[in-house]
Amino acid sequence: MTDEDYMKKALAEARQAYEEGEIPVGVVVVCKDRIIARAHNLTETLHDVTAHAEMQAITAATDALGGKYLDPCTLYVTLEPCVMCAGALGWSQLGRLVYGASDDRRGFSKFAPEALHPKTEVCSGVLAEECRALMKDFFKYKR
Amino acid sequence: MTDEDYMKKALAEARQAYEEGEIPVGVVVVCKDRIIARAHNLTETLHDVTAHAEMQAITAATDALGGKYLDPCTLYVTLEPCVMCAGALGWSQLGRLVYGASDDRRGFSKFAPEALHPKTEVCSGVLAEECRALMKDFFKYKR
Repeated sequence: MTDEDYMKKALAEARQAYEEGEIPVGVVVVCKDRIIARAHNLTETLHDVTAHAEMQAITAATDALGGKYLDPCTLYVTLEPCVMCAGALGWSQLGRLVYGASDDRRGFSKFAPEALHPKTEVCSGVLAEECRALMKDFFKYKR
Repeated sequence: MTDEDYMKKALAEARQAYEEGEIPVGVVVVCKDRIIARAHNLTETLHDVTAHAEMQAITAATDALGGKYLDPCTLYVTLEPCVMCAGALGWSQLGRLVYGASDDRRGFSKFAPEALHPKTEVCSGVLAEECRALMKDFFKYKR
């Protein structure tokens, strides 16, 4: 499986969010070529601003691993993480972050560039156009 | 009730964390002179790096209010929020943040100064010495 293959799985989660009327962001967490957590944004459903896909995925993935840290994992997310999620990923000591579309308004790289753990490898722009198109479509038709 | 009175309640939560072997950070959320949420750090107990006192308090307080936003609330926390928590408080549109001790290593004011909502009022240094002493004591004796 390539980064694009895993991002397609994250996009499937994002589409699930879209169907539920949620801002379409999806995540999968991969450890040793196995998906150990999947999540999508649930802020509307749960009435909880902290229920971003990444936050749920961190909790689920650490549960799956039986520890507190995600240093052996790659997290794939369709949209650049916000400051909250990047801070959480920092605490998790994530090994590798791969994201699709950039988020100029809320993304961590502009507002908290040091939020991630210093050892976290970052790769951006994977299937960016598909990820961005899903967001655009949501805000055009659903809101 | 003054800010110091409410910070004493947050300190009581922090002492509870201390007793449980958790980094001693406590929170209360106040709306119209009533405490609507209390929380303390549970990262060790839950094996979850996202289980900071503030994160739990945001979820509990929004539950109590039946909405997603905390604009009519003041959140009292013994330690300056980290980047993750400040980002979450930003999404919650918190009305007012009052914190005790500053956190030069992890605090949002250094690493994500724009993380809070632009309308959030911030007050720092309330019972700072007591809040700091509890942290120092924890790292001296418990770890």
